[in-house]
Amino acid sequence: MKEKLKIGLLGLGTVGSGVPTILAEHREKISQVTGMDIVVSKALVRDEKEKQYQSERFDIELTTDIEDIINDEEISIIVELIGKIEPAKTYITKALESGKHIVTANKDLLAQHGGELVALAQRNHCDLYYEASVAGGIPILRTIANSLAADDIQKVLGIVNGTTNYMLTKMVSEKQTYEEALAKAQELGFAESDPTNDVDGIDAAYKMVILSQFAFGMNIDLKQVDIRGIRGISSDDVAIASQLGYEIKLIGSSEKNDGGIAVEVAPMLVAAAHPLASIRDEFNAVFIYSAGVGESMYYGPGAGAKPTATSVVSDIITIAKNIRLGTTGHMFNEYQHDTKLTANDAIFGKYYFSIEMPDKPGQILKLTKLMAEANVSFDQLLQQKSDGMRAKFATITHTISKAQMLEVTKQIEKIADFELLNTLKVLEG
Amino acid sequence: MKEKLKIGLLGLGTVGSGVPTILAEHREKISQVTGMDIVVSKALVRDEKEKQYQSERFDIELTTDIEDIINDEEISIIVELIGKIEPAKTYITKALESGKHIVTANKDLLAQHGGELVALAQRNHCDLYYEASVAGGIPILRTIANSLAADDIQKVLGIVNGTTNYMLTKMVSEKQTYEEALAKAQELGFAESDPTNDVDGIDAAYKMVILSQFAFGMNIDLKQVDIRGIRGISSDDVAIASQLGYEIKLIGSSEKNDGGIAVEVAPMLVAAAHPLASIRDEFNAVFIYSAGVGESMYYGPGAGAKPTATSVVSDIITIAKNIRLGTTGHMFNEYQHDTKLTANDAIFGKYYFSIEMPDKPGQILKLTKLMAEANVSFDQLLQQKSDGMRAKFATITHTISKAQMLEVTKQIEKIADFELLNTLKVLEG
Repeated sequence: MKEKLKIGLLGLGTVGSGVPTILAEHREKISQVTGMDIVVSKALVRDEKEKQYQSERFDIELTTDIEDIINDEEISIIVELIGKIEPAKTYITKALESGKHIVTANKDLLAQHGGELVALAQRNHCDLYYEASVAGGIPILRTIANSLAADDIQKVLGIVNGTTNYMLTKMVSEKQTYEEALAKAQELGFAESDPTNDVDGIDAAYKMVILSQFAFGMNIDLKQVDIRGIRGISSDDVAIASQLGYEIKLIGSSEKNDGGIAVEVAPMLVAAAHPLASIRDEFNAVFIYSAGVGESMYYGPGAGAKPTATSVVSDIITIAKNIRLGTTGHMFNEYQHDTKLTANDAIFGKYYFSIEMPDKPGQILKLTKLMAEANVSFDQLLQQKSDGMRAKFATITHTISKAQMLEVTKQIEKIADFELLNTLKVLEG
Repeated sequence: MKEKLKIGLLGLGTVGSGVPTILAEHREKISQVTGMDIVVSKALVRDEKEKQYQSERFDIELTTDIEDIINDEEISIIVELIGKIEPAKTYITKALESGKHIVTANKDLLAQHGGELVALAQRNHCDLYYEASVAGGIPILRTIANSLAADDIQKVLGIVNGTTNYMLTKMVSEKQTYEEALAKAQELGFAESDPTNDVDGIDAAYKMVILSQFAFGMNIDLKQVDIRGIRGISSDDVAIASQLGYEIKLIGSSEKNDGGIAVEVAPMLVAAAHPLASIRDEFNAVFIYSAGVGESMYYGPGAGAKPTATSVVSDIITIAKNIRLGTTGHMFNEYQHDTKLTANDAIFGKYYFSIEMPDKPGQILKLTKLMAEANVSFDQLLQQKSDGMRAKFATITHTISKAQMLEVTKQIEKIADFELLNTLKVLEG
């Protein structure tokens, strides 16, 4: 008989229930790869009565007291699937202090307290893995930590929020309005009743903080991320982008310039030829540009109970192998670098400006003069049919700095009668 | 000062020279991650005079005698980049017998003698890594071995030959003929002067043998792979496919059914909505369908000196970590399963038939009768304008078995006056 490895599970919801399911379904393969028989022995639940089915099916002892799990000496790994900051943080802290290895899918926690928890795991010689915290079904953290260890990553661009990508896909392919697309996403269970974290880009920002730590070894504070969601995106923007040959996507971007990095989440115009433009519906993808490999992209489901639980079990397998080999206590990502941010005048890109102005002579002259003064030139221009009173004007600039973009934005906003509808970054193919 | 880890390099061509380059360029990061200072100390070359530049630049001792490297006790890892079967196989065998760890990018060797070499590495407690042998810039083997260890893979579909994908892209986007596309690929250095291995699907078959071993734990013999290249593909096929909403791609497919697998390399019609349809030019991609994660895809450069050398160095880093932790001697892929092949009546798919027939009454009746007798029904039909004498007819069937496809093919070929131009499998989106 193989050695038993016992898991304590915090949270037995849809993802949580997936963990014992996968361990049971792929028992033979997992036991062959790890040399161990891995089972969930205890689970922390809010109400023991509600989870009787899972308890009986998988022979899991239920408890409402975290101490029952932390003090169980037979349990080696604790899997945290409660989410949010508290009580998850307290539980993980106590577990690490008791020498338990941790697997978690908690992006909020890792993005905001990752450094602290990683250090605590190190001090206690424990493993702390969290592959499922970013793009559930895509093993992107492990890929960066292992396979790109020999490479110099220059740019990470991600569609890392499934809800907003689903909404934007519907706005493009079915010409739905923002409100219709949101209602549909909520109906399908992608978006929560309070969609703030998704549509305002906060969820994507958490993931970009974690991705930046892996790609560049730098610990970025959430406050250092320039975050903008998709609330301001109208069907008009989507249509104009399409006319110019682009698709609007909510992109998380982390880019190295001059030794520093800039991390941003914003809706961007993605050229049809860019691999990210083809990512539809609730799927996620992470596109990496590195010195050695060049372009690579990793695509898969961003969330969902099964993909997330599968990712959690792959972390459990990693820890099981480490236990067998006696090599626990090493960091998930061993690349560490001093954190340095890039200044706005060293961040470059093409930008899209959409402006409403009075439909009378001399308006475009005002705009072009202002652009010329900021040393900004046009790559594409589009003037739409006007209603006789107001004209809509869209332009894509040549490559400029973020500082120039901010300056032009400020100047346009100063012109009475002009309304700046949107400023968006452009990703070419 | 950190411990030095010395590498012996077999072959110092473009990929070979990339290895010391990457080790030097990313020295700080690599040393942080491995805790070692990794250098190439010796290289096996055909002519010492030709490689003086690399020798001086990276302080590498050149030799034309393999024994100089194998008998060097300071060398822990040997990197084989000679390619083909011999003398690479003899060198690797001797090296493993002398306790050296191996990194190789040699797909021919791994596909044909992988089992034997893996067993030899095991017996000698040595590491044997070969990530660069499949899709150079895509860490697909490591992803399957580690991240999908918790999953049940059902299907692996790959665009794993850059030359043919480049050619087919040109045939679609620039309406080039097969001959023009091949000439262009040769001009750019993608295709060798003898392009047999690429255009006849053999290179892709090697990679599918290796991918099948990782995905399903089964050792497939090259003879068990149904291999067909792109030589028979005409501009006409490409144009008809496009009219029906598909793109022709050379696809390596390894699929599990009924506990057995079927491995095939063939040009297939890929629906425009399928993620593989968007893979252009010389890029590679591997699409996986698994029970837990669902759809995932890994995209990147398939070859090239820098991506391949980067992949080789990621294997070196893995072994360096294993050496540091004292955990060498484990298999790259620990998943092993008895090999079982699926019978043709348990392999299912939609198929495209393109047929030339006399342009006179009753011809389509013959065809539809024959299809009905084999219990095959049509999903799409397309009859092209005829020259008055011969008509061209293309059809896509509903899902049928491979056995049915072969039966229909045989029956069509029996009809005098009919010419079966092509039979291709169809991948829906």
